[in-house]
Amino acid sequence: MNEMEVAEVFDAFQDRYLDLMNKKNINYIAIFHNHGREAGASIPHPHSQLMAIPVIAPYIKLELDGAERYYRSNKHCVYCVMAEYESNEKKRVVFENDEFIAFCPFASRAAFEVWVMPKKHNPYFERITDSQKIKLAEVFQKGLGSIYKALNDPPYNFYIHTSPCDGKDYSHFHWHIEILPVPPTPWAGFELETGIEVSTIQPEVAAEFLRKQI
Amino acid sequence: MNEMEVAEVFDAFQDRYLDLMNKKNINYIAIFHNHGREAGASIPHPHSQLMAIPVIAPYIKLELDGAERYYRSNKHCVYCVMAEYESNEKKRVVFENDEFIAFCPFASRAAFEVWVMPKKHNPYFERITDSQKIKLAEVFQKGLGSIYKALNDPPYNFYIHTSPCDGKDYSHFHWHIEILPVPPTPWAGFELETGIEVSTIQPEVAAEFLRKQI
Repeated sequence: MNEMEVAEVFDAFQDRYLDLMNKKNINYIAIFHNHGREAGASIPHPHSQLMAIPVIAPYIKLELDGAERYYRSNKHCVYCVMAEYESNEKKRVVFENDEFIAFCPFASRAAFEVWVMPKKHNPYFERITDSQKIKLAEVFQKGLGSIYKALNDPPYNFYIHTSPCDGKDYSHFHWHIEILPVPPTPWAGFELETGIEVSTIQPEVAAEFLRKQI
Repeated sequence: MNEMEVAEVFDAFQDRYLDLMNKKNINYIAIFHNHGREAGASIPHPHSQLMAIPVIAPYIKLELDGAERYYRSNKHCVYCVMAEYESNEKKRVVFENDEFIAFCPFASRAAFEVWVMPKKHNPYFERITDSQKIKLAEVFQKGLGSIYKALNDPPYNFYIHTSPCDGKDYSHFHWHIEILPVPPTPWAGFELETGIEVSTIQPEVAAEFLRKQI
């Protein structure tokens, strides 16, 4: 897909999100994409999925609580700090423009994990503007495209983490996208027992390799 | 394996655990087993693994905190309550004797998930007695054997959740084993995004099917 087509995908995500968010009993909207059989894709053509659910998902809750705790202690959004830090450090950055940054997280859970994040604070994905969508599309297409080339069309999942739509205030959260290539050996006994993921490459090395594909 | 051989495996687990638990910087000992390539097994013959780590693993922390909260509110161990409730209800039980129970958890994360739990309160796996090991071996062998037969030698993981060995008091926890057959479709975008697992069968139906294999 070219960048305009990618922007249209995010436009469709937003469109569906806005339609569903105020409906009764809908408190979180999960938007995700599975690519490849090993990533759980049940149909072969490219497709994304959306599940509108009545509960705040546990993993979202962990991030919301973490962001809130960080804000209380430091009076800054932890994701804003992260985006600025990575943009300055450079070594884990895959690609960035003035609005968005794609980088391999310092504590990557999987080899070649990439997060795409708005640089300006925004808790709510659905408030993205049309011009931001174009900027997002550039960074996302370069970020995901680099994984596609580096790992020769690997199976992967990506999803949007954004604030719940239950009407409460989530002003300290910061929406973002997490891209997770499926690891060559699946998360197994140790990961299932402990919740600690073993990755096989340093994020700095992964990012350097991904940058070379762009 | 027959029951005596299974008991010897648990004896080996305990032996290694006791050797490691008081060593410096070891605060949790993860014992787990991967069976089948899809379950992350890297060598084909049956093998278990042990990782002695300096941190309290996040998933253990969640269970410890949950058990503590439940105890404060109810003055009972939540796992004792669970074992007794399932033993009375019967419909989710796969097999039990006077010391141990194997059952499909009410909120199973995967189809045919089975937990094996001592009926008497005990936070610490390493304190299991020789006679309890024989009782455990009977229940574990029947429980895992039923999965083996029902699903025709599927890939699976199992692991022991027990109290940390950091010297603190975990008297409200209750050690147990979790057996997780690998789902036919992998945990994908929705599970990774939310931490909510989608299972394809009710635990009562799964348990009934497993009981028929014994």
